[in-house]
Amino acid sequence: MPIRQHKYLLDESEMPTSWYNIVPDLPAPPPPPLHPGTHEPVGPDDLAPLFPMDLILQEVSTERYIPIPDEVQDVYRLWRPSPLFRAHRLEQALGTPARIYYKYEGVSPAGSHKPNTAVPQVYYNAKAGVKKLTTETGAGQWGTALAFACSLFDVECEVWQVGASYDAKPYRRTVIETFGGTVHRSPSQLTSAGRAFAADHPGSLGIAISEAVEKAAGAADTKYALGSVLNHVLLHQTVIGEEALLQLAKAGETGADLVIGCTGGGSNFGGLAFPFLREKLAGRQNPVIRAVEPASCPSLTRGEYRYDFGDTAGFTPLMKMHTLGHDFVPDPIHAGGLRYHGMAPLISHIYELGLMEALSIEQTECFAAAVRFARTEGIVPAPEPTHALAATMREALACKESGEEKVIVTALCGHGLLDLGAYDAYLNDRMVDSGLSDADLDAALSTIPVLT
Amino acid sequence: MPIRQHKYLLDESEMPTSWYNIVPDLPAPPPPPLHPGTHEPVGPDDLAPLFPMDLILQEVSTERYIPIPDEVQDVYRLWRPSPLFRAHRLEQALGTPARIYYKYEGVSPAGSHKPNTAVPQVYYNAKAGVKKLTTETGAGQWGTALAFACSLFDVECEVWQVGASYDAKPYRRTVIETFGGTVHRSPSQLTSAGRAFAADHPGSLGIAISEAVEKAAGAADTKYALGSVLNHVLLHQTVIGEEALLQLAKAGETGADLVIGCTGGGSNFGGLAFPFLREKLAGRQNPVIRAVEPASCPSLTRGEYRYDFGDTAGFTPLMKMHTLGHDFVPDPIHAGGLRYHGMAPLISHIYELGLMEALSIEQTECFAAAVRFARTEGIVPAPEPTHALAATMREALACKESGEEKVIVTALCGHGLLDLGAYDAYLNDRMVDSGLSDADLDAALSTIPVLT
Repeated sequence: MPIRQHKYLLDESEMPTSWYNIVPDLPAPPPPPLHPGTHEPVGPDDLAPLFPMDLILQEVSTERYIPIPDEVQDVYRLWRPSPLFRAHRLEQALGTPARIYYKYEGVSPAGSHKPNTAVPQVYYNAKAGVKKLTTETGAGQWGTALAFACSLFDVECEVWQVGASYDAKPYRRTVIETFGGTVHRSPSQLTSAGRAFAADHPGSLGIAISEAVEKAAGAADTKYALGSVLNHVLLHQTVIGEEALLQLAKAGETGADLVIGCTGGGSNFGGLAFPFLREKLAGRQNPVIRAVEPASCPSLTRGEYRYDFGDTAGFTPLMKMHTLGHDFVPDPIHAGGLRYHGMAPLISHIYELGLMEALSIEQTECFAAAVRFARTEGIVPAPEPTHALAATMREALACKESGEEKVIVTALCGHGLLDLGAYDAYLNDRMVDSGLSDADLDAALSTIPVLT
Repeated sequence: MPIRQHKYLLDESEMPTSWYNIVPDLPAPPPPPLHPGTHEPVGPDDLAPLFPMDLILQEVSTERYIPIPDEVQDVYRLWRPSPLFRAHRLEQALGTPARIYYKYEGVSPAGSHKPNTAVPQVYYNAKAGVKKLTTETGAGQWGTALAFACSLFDVECEVWQVGASYDAKPYRRTVIETFGGTVHRSPSQLTSAGRAFAADHPGSLGIAISEAVEKAAGAADTKYALGSVLNHVLLHQTVIGEEALLQLAKAGETGADLVIGCTGGGSNFGGLAFPFLREKLAGRQNPVIRAVEPASCPSLTRGEYRYDFGDTAGFTPLMKMHTLGHDFVPDPIHAGGLRYHGMAPLISHIYELGLMEALSIEQTECFAAAVRFARTEGIVPAPEPTHALAATMREALACKESGEEKVIVTALCGHGLLDLGAYDAYLNDRMVDSGLSDADLDAALSTIPVLT
């Protein structure tokens, strides 16, 4: 049989040396976050109780490239550069002329893309003398990543895990503890934000964020870390797209025709897509950029583009973003990492600028795609990227019809070995699509604050 | 900070093109397996009910190198070559002058080294027209690997999972099912070998092997696959050591001073060690070769070198090996993959020839080492290689005392993300060392058949 190269690797010496900030390349700047009390734009000082100044400066930076510190690169090299795979076996099974590439972030210690930002966040906090970080986690990927990063820089880590996920995934707690972190079920009795809910409430990312923020704001040498949504988080994730561009060239491709990523808060999607969008804005490539979200939590496709809180209790600044309302509690679908009521302000802005597309997919289609992927490519995907895989397969089958040899690039942002309950449900016909009714959506949207 | 390279990768084009068979390089040939009825050496035809002829010929081959088929290489390239890591962060934490390298097989679809042999085994069976394979699995790694390989070559896969493991690790069953396999708790009611035990018996690898062998022997287009112990299995695993030799050279090392691997049936250990042993026998390197086994299942260090059955029911040929007795049921320690009563005949023979060392370690020391490893290198090890890591750390600390800059190479043969119950037990002080008493050992040894 012909020799087919499956992986395109980079040497450690070829790793990107800077993160890419898309803001200066956009045709219009994104709207600023607003102070929750005054509704005036927030300044760096407003964010100082929660974040160290290095991260705040990255959050508001208009520099195109921000150098990656050596100490961060030294940790990145534990798993980076991550491989770019050509999905030969999947293409063959689908009978498609499309060439499918997937950037695989499951090789990281946490099994997902999350350490790409956890490591620099902990590094900058440690550099600023911070002793403890608090955070929330939905699926558990972010909590795992932060605990891993904290273990390397000798920082304490305290995680509020969304109740439904905490109950369904005891192994997630164990991984976080193995890395030395502490885990609480959210809503917890440890915060006023948590005590506002019944102890057996399934929780939400919005509630867990409120709890972690409350704890951090109330302690001197404690700060807060967020795993998605914010500009500096998306910035750190751009190593994904930067590497993918280099690897695609090694594969002999002149560019991508289509870039597909799943979106929850937006960090995986932004990390993959922004470097490709830079190439598009500069006229060097012309890919379609497509975000895929769960039908049960469709912030881009059914939410409103409004100023809203990032958390349920209203502790955070108001951010202009696509939102379903800050107290939206999505059905407990299995892609816990995508159960956020809002979308990253930067991605929301780019969507409004017409530079990208979005669609939503129901979960049974996603898991059907995931099982097909596992049985051809060998990797069991995390529930989140099953959305990107389902959209990729739709497109690959369209190429089969049309005969187009499109180059499709997607991000397999994590493996699903700690999310197998969802596969068990799918394989045994216990998974249902969680359709979101217009009435429920309207009720949630009505809670978005009206700014005067 | 100075730039430290953490990973030594190979290009897909640098992959070994042959498996290495150590038999012709040994100073004496290993004793042959014997027919269980006649006690005469078995010939290829005796094995034909269980294995396809290609594998039988590999089992008895005296060729030094056996080419890897293109169809197998095409699957290997999904994850191979696997990385060799320099454990800079662990070395720093230990304060050792030793240079520690670990070959990481957890990047495979099954998360362990097992697909290295599952893929060729399924390939040769499919080529021979076999429609279904049966097997046993202890920790679940082997069953996962075989199900993965079967999914690629369109062969059915039926797995008997050791009862204690089946009960403790429901996720393992789900992964196997995701790859399309079927899983039974062993002992099951589906075989006479299984029905000899109570339904709630915790099971053993020996019992599960009997069940899978019984099923395969009784069906026309069904054969059996074994994940360790046999010569052809160890042969396939030599890609580990072959790659490690190339990668060690890329790291600038002239050779290893010490090669350390964990041993259950012996396939991970043989796969890593045999290519190094070839270099040693040829006088090109002079490493100490050291096997590490669990104190609760110490076949090399406390077993007898005798002819014994490979399974509990006595269906298999008699093999001369270090054995604890074929109905030995080890304490349910967490390293399920090391709970086998015997040691690969080839490794047993090499041990008798004085070409390698062995020691056993209790599990709490192993998990202490594993947590230290996770918090420095970022990977949560499978329970099996924690034994190799514990022995590596002992040696690294000895180097700290002596000042020796030894080059230590070990195999991290899998990750532990599906074995987190063991970490939970360790972290919460529920793990105990399972000392094996002389009386229990003597009772088990007394069941080894006496050949006249």
